[in-house]
Amino acid sequence: MVIVMHRDATEKQVEQVIGKLESQGFDVHRSTGVEHTILGAVGAKVVDTRDYEMVEGVKEVHRISEPYKLASRAFRPEGSVIEIGDVKIGSDQVVIMAGPCTIENFEFCDIVAERVKAAGASIIRGGAFKPRTSPYSFQGHGEEGLKAIRKAADNHGLLVISEVMEASQLPLAEDYIDIIQIGARNMQNYGLLRDIGKTNIPALLKRGMSATISDLLLAAEYIMAEGNHNVLLCERGIRTFETQTRNTLDISAIPVIHNLSHLPVIVDPSHAIGVRDKIAPLARAAVAAGADGLLLEVHHDPDNAICDGAQSMKLDQFDDLMQELRVISGAVDRSIAGQEPVEV
Amino acid sequence: MVIVMHRDATEKQVEQVIGKLESQGFDVHRSTGVEHTILGAVGAKVVDTRDYEMVEGVKEVHRISEPYKLASRAFRPEGSVIEIGDVKIGSDQVVIMAGPCTIENFEFCDIVAERVKAAGASIIRGGAFKPRTSPYSFQGHGEEGLKAIRKAADNHGLLVISEVMEASQLPLAEDYIDIIQIGARNMQNYGLLRDIGKTNIPALLKRGMSATISDLLLAAEYIMAEGNHNVLLCERGIRTFETQTRNTLDISAIPVIHNLSHLPVIVDPSHAIGVRDKIAPLARAAVAAGADGLLLEVHHDPDNAICDGAQSMKLDQFDDLMQELRVISGAVDRSIAGQEPVEV
Amino acid sequence: MVIVMHRDATEKQVEQVIGKLESQGFDVHRSTGVEHTILGAVGAKVVDTRDYEMVEGVKEVHRISEPYKLASRAFRPEGSVIEIGDVKIGSDQVVIMAGPCTIENFEFCDIVAERVKAAGASIIRGGAFKPRTSPYSFQGHGEEGLKAIRKAADNHGLLVISEVMEASQLPLAEDYIDIIQIGARNMQNYGLLRDIGKTNIPALLKRGMSATISDLLLAAEYIMAEGNHNVLLCERGIRTFETQTRNTLDISAIPVIHNLSHLPVIVDPSHAIGVRDKIAPLARAAVAAGADGLLLEVHHDPDNAICDGAQSMKLDQFDDLMQELRVISGAVDRSIAGQEPVEV
Amino acid sequence: MVIVMHRDATEKQVEQVIGKLESQGFDVHRSTGVEHTILGAVGAKVVDTRDYEMVEGVKEVHRISEPYKLASRAFRPEGSVIEIGDVKIGSDQVVIMAGPCTIENFEFCDIVAERVKAAGASIIRGGAFKPRTSPYSFQGHGEEGLKAIRKAADNHGLLVISEVMEASQLPLAEDYIDIIQIGARNMQNYGLLRDIGKTNIPALLKRGMSATISDLLLAAEYIMAEGNHNVLLCERGIRTFETQTRNTLDISAIPVIHNLSHLPVIVDPSHAIGVRDKIAPLARAAVAAGADGLLLEVHHDPDNAICDGAQSMKLDQFDDLMQELRVISGAVDRSIAGQEPVEV
Repeated sequence: MVIVMHRDATEKQVEQVIGKLESQGFDVHRSTGVEHTILGAVGAKVVDTRDYEMVEGVKEVHRISEPYKLASRAFRPEGSVIEIGDVKIGSDQVVIMAGPCTIENFEFCDIVAERVKAAGASIIRGGAFKPRTSPYSFQGHGEEGLKAIRKAADNHGLLVISEVMEASQLPLAEDYIDIIQIGARNMQNYGLLRDIGKTNIPALLKRGMSATISDLLLAAEYIMAEGNHNVLLCERGIRTFETQTRNTLDISAIPVIHNLSHLPVIVDPSHAIGVRDKIAPLARAAVAAGADGLLLEVHHDPDNAICDGAQSMKLDQFDDLMQELRVISGAVDRSIAGQEPVEV
Repeated sequence: MVIVMHRDATEKQVEQVIGKLESQGFDVHRSTGVEHTILGAVGAKVVDTRDYEMVEGVKEVHRISEPYKLASRAFRPEGSVIEIGDVKIGSDQVVIMAGPCTIENFEFCDIVAERVKAAGASIIRGGAFKPRTSPYSFQGHGEEGLKAIRKAADNHGLLVISEVMEASQLPLAEDYIDIIQIGARNMQNYGLLRDIGKTNIPALLKRGMSATISDLLLAAEYIMAEGNHNVLLCERGIRTFETQTRNTLDISAIPVIHNLSHLPVIVDPSHAIGVRDKIAPLARAAVAAGADGLLLEVHHDPDNAICDGAQSMKLDQFDDLMQELRVISGAVDRSIAGQEPVEV
Repeated sequence: MVIVMHRDATEKQVEQVIGKLESQGFDVHRSTGVEHTILGAVGAKVVDTRDYEMVEGVKEVHRISEPYKLASRAFRPEGSVIEIGDVKIGSDQVVIMAGPCTIENFEFCDIVAERVKAAGASIIRGGAFKPRTSPYSFQGHGEEGLKAIRKAADNHGLLVISEVMEASQLPLAEDYIDIIQIGARNMQNYGLLRDIGKTNIPALLKRGMSATISDLLLAAEYIMAEGNHNVLLCERGIRTFETQTRNTLDISAIPVIHNLSHLPVIVDPSHAIGVRDKIAPLARAAVAAGADGLLLEVHHDPDNAICDGAQSMKLDQFDDLMQELRVISGAVDRSIAGQEPVEV
Repeated sequence: MVIVMHRDATEKQVEQVIGKLESQGFDVHRSTGVEHTILGAVGAKVVDTRDYEMVEGVKEVHRISEPYKLASRAFRPEGSVIEIGDVKIGSDQVVIMAGPCTIENFEFCDIVAERVKAAGASIIRGGAFKPRTSPYSFQGHGEEGLKAIRKAADNHGLLVISEVMEASQLPLAEDYIDIIQIGARNMQNYGLLRDIGKTNIPALLKRGMSATISDLLLAAEYIMAEGNHNVLLCERGIRTFETQTRNTLDISAIPVIHNLSHLPVIVDPSHAIGVRDKIAPLARAAVAAGADGLLLEVHHDPDNAICDGAQSMKLDQFDDLMQELRVISGAVDRSIAGQEPVEV
């Protein structure tokens, strides 16, 4: 923490600040300039910087250390690779997770699983518990849905990612799924984060609609602090003033998070853009910008999907996209997980 | 729902849209203009408007009905008054809720309770379970805290408002508190909303940092749909690009919500502005703009508060503010709950 | 400027930073902590902090001094009072500026002038040159409009505020108006700001839709740096994700600007909220929060106004509002300019 | 325009709305539903929808036609190709514009011109007039700068793009530059837009920091309405709550604008991200998402650049990026202007 005193701060005020810092266990280094006295405070304690901003004579306070530790790049400078079966997320593989918004039944899952596997996906997605903005919308098929997607995945050699909304659903997660998805609305549901932290199931943590990147890393810290370090961070669009898109995909978050944290970054373009025809450009952009994986809504008959059909790609669109992604991942020295690299 | 067809939409496309609408139970009224054909669709079903935007020939889709019903002004045009003991929230009383961010111990609660009661508050606030952005911050005193604040409130004839973060805490809420506070981060924690909806304890629902007013009303709908209609809406600042303040208090939300909904509107200026010295201007503004109540952080010794001391008013500041609020509430034909109206 | 070095920065890297700072004329104070070395740099030069962030070994850079000087509170701690005739903006008077969005003709100006003067306004507003988002909208009456509003103002003892969009309009401004309004879209039109800075006409500078408060003060600095210190700052709403209102009035800007700057703060609720029926609550809120004045759209027949009728108050609404404002200004130890204080 | 009447609107209110619409020249089609009466209004006039929202009995008003015409995709469904010399912007070429933020002198321009040409750029950028947030920053070399960049461009077979801030600079633009850049702060400087519309010099119009895509297209309409249809739209980042980046690059704007307008879309990643090391990921993302060109800050010695050195790529970084872009443009069936397509 660096504290800058006002130009006209008295010596007594400077000493009071030093006293307060020392009483909280900080080592203080004082630098008396012509205009401003600057106090550098080093210590392990996380404090509310505003508590010092309010002290007489203080002009401003800057935090030096990031408030997250386990999630920071410094904790593991070489980057994390999350291994699940053959899939290595955070390596030079780009990992594709694709499937319907909501699990409708086994037959539909099986159709989608066969096709997305053939096109190059490693993981099937599908929701059994659906958080919906309106209480009158469809809320998911629960355990039956999980059974269906597990069976379809096993038929085709895929892993499963699915959302968990409450701690009470965690035993089902242990039985049926490989990666827990934590929805954007639950990014700061700290009880849930802690409970997931106590399992060893890999978790994909979606960035909240108005969460800063720093907030996202602090939420990851909640999970990691309990012992589960298998965390994937997911950019899925933030809320801005622009109304042409459902959310604004923050493409810059990819290099920024890679710089601040060792955790892999997955991008969900479907929720960001909200309409099918613009998913492919954003998916290509994400891989070009260095994303470690994609989470895509794909449906064999989106016009009749129970939910979010508008933002689900058709199977043919997905096939075409995967061809483009093979080339683009080659341009950034990577390859699609499970596929041969493209020579460029 | 109103569907506008493209200028060059074919008759067949128009008929397909009409067919889809009718198959979903809508009554369709067609208006064929020189440039555009417009379809008015009336029905009870809540649909995803994007499902129609994707249909060939459709230019745009506008939702007519609000997706919330119980929370809408039309449901109770005269406005709701939530009665708790002598306090009538939503009436011509302006109700003041004041107290520390976190409950530290009984003695401190008692000091604050005595003073805020004397100054004109009807309800004491204080947190026993604290949602914190960092896992390393203080997390609250739990049931001991609730006992302390209940006793202090009873000593001085105050009601109690306190936050509940998980359904497992609801039995404690039934025992100790009069109004459940639902934090901004939990505004879309639908499981929690439903569980609170099954109680009959009045609930103050805080607007999420990036929630639109429409999102807030839909969240209220989750509670009300379970039978609990005693909901207070709380504006506490939204996230914007401005960094001088912790959040941007959306003062316009007061008249806008009053127009859209029958539920009372409470304003929390402390969390919006984040620093003590600017709480009073915002509190005055909220009452002047028509707020039904205020939620204020007040502490007898904020420099040594366990949490959020920087945004807690001192007791003397609170006394001064209450004097100003008495006059301002008079200017808008109201009075502070439990106080004589000011003649103006 | 405070520069924090990385934990593992080498001595050579620290010396390079010191060398770079000194070569730019900074005095450097070094504080070597256990974890971080901190460099405090004091000097007059405004530099791009990113130039230091890019240097090897640097962790982060914090600017200490605000980049604006003349606009800062430190430049005139007692606050500025802008005197124009009998009106003293920034004093204990609350100054009301009211009138139509656009000047339609003399008769209409005269009707409005008579009524707003009687109700307590000191200044009449009205646009002769209109910036419009669409090139196909009405663009204003130009000099004829200015003549009309000047005459109406003189008939009733009012001052005139009107917008100038280009430097070529400044000679007309000198002839006809008392306060130049600089529109939100021109807040960073630096050529125009400089040209206005070379006159001595008081200028009301509107905050741009996405301008931070710091940006606004820097824009004021452009005017003041040329010698014109008669600047009024105007909060008129910022762009956020909320779509229920045209813009989000940043009510907190009032105390924040008063803290950072000595310049008076005027609030324009009409442009923020965009609809007539919600102007009064915001106007009351602004005065309650400490605004030095209001800029209000008022029209004698808003349903037939050429432009922005929807956000213009009717004359009766304005009368009622002024009664409320008299009381509220009393609650904050002020009075409406030209009116007797209210005893409270 | 579609007007939805309130459920309980009287017949007289419906007729009043119809009368008002007809008096403004609209053809009205009425559709009387069980719950709501819907009025479809067709006409050429651009009106303020709020004027109808305020009428008694009206529930809501939806605009059907976009307020821009010449800029809309419907005006030229096949898309515009802007030809300047050999360069065809909006074709299957991806056009690279690269160079320093500000023109320092001829020698430096010549070094950069040689290198960016060799790497595959077609256009050199560089500012002679600099809009700066602070009045105390460097403001550009003016005509001397333009001469220098013109000469360097001619030496190496490049076109020139440079910013014009005021109409008085247009004669210089005619003499020295091929594309006028209109800065983000001037996006709604309507006088300047009109003056540029009267020339036939191609113009690159940068999106304002808080401009919606619709605002951007309306600003383009101002230029086009005067006769100059050679407009390039430039996404350069919008202002959001995220503070890790200078602005948030709205990557979705590329497919969204391509859908709404026939004008080419150029992306400026340098201003969005603000730091050198993250420009390449965003540049790759933009081409992958379908951008028609890039505007990049490149400097031969950015650490000593007069301005914005932190966000200028080094020449070696630019060379590497161009190799990646060749592959990525191949993946989307395009090639870098002036380069052989890559076989993929």
